[in-house]
Amino acid sequence: MSKGRAEAFSDGIFAVAATLLIFNVQIDKSGPGGLLDALLAAWPKYAAYAASFLTIGVMWMNHHGLFERIARMNRGLLFVNLLLLMAIVFLPFSTEQLGSNILVPRDSNTAASLYALNAFMIAVCFSAVWIYALTHPGLLRPEVDRQVALQSWPRFSIGTAVYLACVPLSQFSPIAVVVVCSALAVYYVFERLPDITRQAAGQH
Amino acid sequence: MSKGRAEAFSDGIFAVAATLLIFNVQIDKSGPGGLLDALLAAWPKYAAYAASFLTIGVMWMNHHGLFERIARMNRGLLFVNLLLLMAIVFLPFSTEQLGSNILVPRDSNTAASLYALNAFMIAVCFSAVWIYALTHPGLLRPEVDRQVALQSWPRFSIGTAVYLACVPLSQFSPIAVVVVCSALAVYYVFERLPDITRQAAGQH
Amino acid sequence: MSKGRAEAFSDGIFAVAATLLIFNVQIDKSGPGGLLDALLAAWPKYAAYAASFLTIGVMWMNHHGLFERIARMNRGLLFVNLLLLMAIVFLPFSTEQLGSNILVPRDSNTAASLYALNAFMIAVCFSAVWIYALTHPGLLRPEVDRQVALQSWPRFSIGTAVYLACVPLSQFSPIAVVVVCSALAVYYVFERLPDITRQAAGQH
Amino acid sequence: MSKGRAEAFSDGIFAVAATLLIFNVQIDKSGPGGLLDALLAAWPKYAAYAASFLTIGVMWMNHHGLFERIARMNRGLLFVNLLLLMAIVFLPFSTEQLGSNILVPRDSNTAASLYALNAFMIAVCFSAVWIYALTHPGLLRPEVDRQVALQSWPRFSIGTAVYLACVPLSQFSPIAVVVVCSALAVYYVFERLPDITRQAAGQH
Repeated sequence: MSKGRAEAFSDGIFAVAATLLIFNVQIDKSGPGGLLDALLAAWPKYAAYAASFLTIGVMWMNHHGLFERIARMNRGLLFVNLLLLMAIVFLPFSTEQLGSNILVPRDSNTAASLYALNAFMIAVCFSAVWIYALTHPGLLRPEVDRQVALQSWPRFSIGTAVYLACVPLSQFSPIAVVVVCSALAVYYVFERLPDITRQAAGQH
Repeated sequence: MSKGRAEAFSDGIFAVAATLLIFNVQIDKSGPGGLLDALLAAWPKYAAYAASFLTIGVMWMNHHGLFERIARMNRGLLFVNLLLLMAIVFLPFSTEQLGSNILVPRDSNTAASLYALNAFMIAVCFSAVWIYALTHPGLLRPEVDRQVALQSWPRFSIGTAVYLACVPLSQFSPIAVVVVCSALAVYYVFERLPDITRQAAGQH
Repeated sequence: MSKGRAEAFSDGIFAVAATLLIFNVQIDKSGPGGLLDALLAAWPKYAAYAASFLTIGVMWMNHHGLFERIARMNRGLLFVNLLLLMAIVFLPFSTEQLGSNILVPRDSNTAASLYALNAFMIAVCFSAVWIYALTHPGLLRPEVDRQVALQSWPRFSIGTAVYLACVPLSQFSPIAVVVVCSALAVYYVFERLPDITRQAAGQH
Repeated sequence: MSKGRAEAFSDGIFAVAATLLIFNVQIDKSGPGGLLDALLAAWPKYAAYAASFLTIGVMWMNHHGLFERIARMNRGLLFVNLLLLMAIVFLPFSTEQLGSNILVPRDSNTAASLYALNAFMIAVCFSAVWIYALTHPGLLRPEVDRQVALQSWPRFSIGTAVYLACVPLSQFSPIAVVVVCSALAVYYVFERLPDITRQAAGQH
């Protein structure tokens, strides 16, 4: 089974989910002349939009990097990938709750918990795709060194642990959850994936 | 006529339809501090989201598997494929009705009927694409054994029959319809398509 | 300039526009137990959905057929194609008005006029893309016989004339406009494009 | 790292963002028989739709032209591209504010400022992608002449300066901002990108 259409389908889901985030940026205009105030008051929604857009974008980059190491798909891998996509498509909903409630006393904690749980689920599904591929070597490209890949695992899993730690953190500081999730997205751009790319750097 | 763009268009429709499902997950927040209760009360919407996302995802997987057996497209096949896509895009609407009404006495039966009818229509259109391709051998890849494909037909049609049986079932238990449709999606991942793949397994 | 990404971008627009049509299928539920009546009362929205989905789908098929005859793109062709896409993306709005107003006395005429005007604009832009390509022969694939293509022009333009005729027709019978547009979509599936395909049939 | 999926993801984002603009075209119908008046009164939304669709479409064309000069991607380029996409997806929101407020006294100035700022951000991110690629020559296709590309820079940056100038302009005439942004989109179709394309014209 070729991986071209699996990538096209995944790219479509990532792209649509990222784009739909803009629907969560909505303002409450109090009346004529109130646009500027309404725009300024909506800052939590811009922050949530940026954090989620970056998260989806970086997940896509890592998905891209991971699938470069995969030579072919089977039904099981397609299914695990589907669960990953299902978790990613849920992010616009979590983002909406976060953006709408971050200034509401108790609800901000609930919304940040939901957001962190969603990010954690995405990271878990992402790991599941990678573990599935590693444990079914026929799916990997021959030049992938499974030993090196497994050794890079602990660093790869940092994100999963941090997202999980954000669940209790959300009870203390919902803003901190947004900051940590955004920082993690930027961290994953520059620190994470180059590592598992290194061994295959020769032919790219 | 090449099949590349037909796949790209279909992938786009599947991906967008799956992603739009998240719009049906909406909550009624009663007031400040009510987010947690509202999130918990929305469980039927998460269930409907998961069932429909899996259904669309697995339909996409089977679409993928089917088109791997097709070498070229003609206008008739494009048109039947278009009807299939039209039925799939309807699923977010059926899902919305199901998620919003599953706890409302009589409406839950109506919504589950609508959902089962929609799934049945998708299965019928899916069969129509396959039958059209089988009866126009010039469209199939030469290595596809039409005899084997036709013999696998009864098992392939189980889903269609089950979806149809869900229409009367919905009058008794709408929840059972959601469970059966989700189970059918999972069944189709692991049981169904490998069968018609077997004969072409050599070159993949 | 390669045409691959122009096709991918166009496919994406067609696919998203077709999928967004489902948002126009919305019902007014009067209260608990009223779902069935609300679903039945929404029939004009299903009809508008089906007519527009078929129209976009068949436009996509013709776009596909047209681009098969094009070897390369230039900026002018990209721009005319952009205008075509802009007209297509407008269709969900026209469809929404048609579906919402087809049973409202005077508004149904207005909505059907808008719909017919939109379809007319799409057909005009579609012709513009084709004329632009025909008058810039460097863009066409060498095997395309411009003489034959120009002779097939009158039949190709039937749709444009019919859509235009639907504007006055909408003042008498809005339903007739929906029927004619749907019929035209089906007509274009089976009658129109094979004609300009014929000359290039050898290499497909 | 291949650029195929980066293009597919970007194409998806551009296509979805352009298509979502239609959601900003909404009318306030006062009652039965009021559709025509409501449609006519919504002209600012059509203007905003057209201006933004053209802007996104032309940005896509330039993105296409730019990526033709790029041979391979690295993480940094993917990240800068992600920021560009994040700015583009924000345009439907800015467009909605513009279309809804262009006739409201003070809010029209605010909305036009927001719109101009958004277009300016897009232009800045677009420049950042191009500068990043130019300063990392390993990413460019070998036939790209960096000297010529750098010399074409001033003309390329005209748009950025004009968008910035639209921010103060918006305080005097919001309509002028829409006109200037639309004109700039058309200008970029026919004047801008052919210039940096010239040197590579031979192999296309």
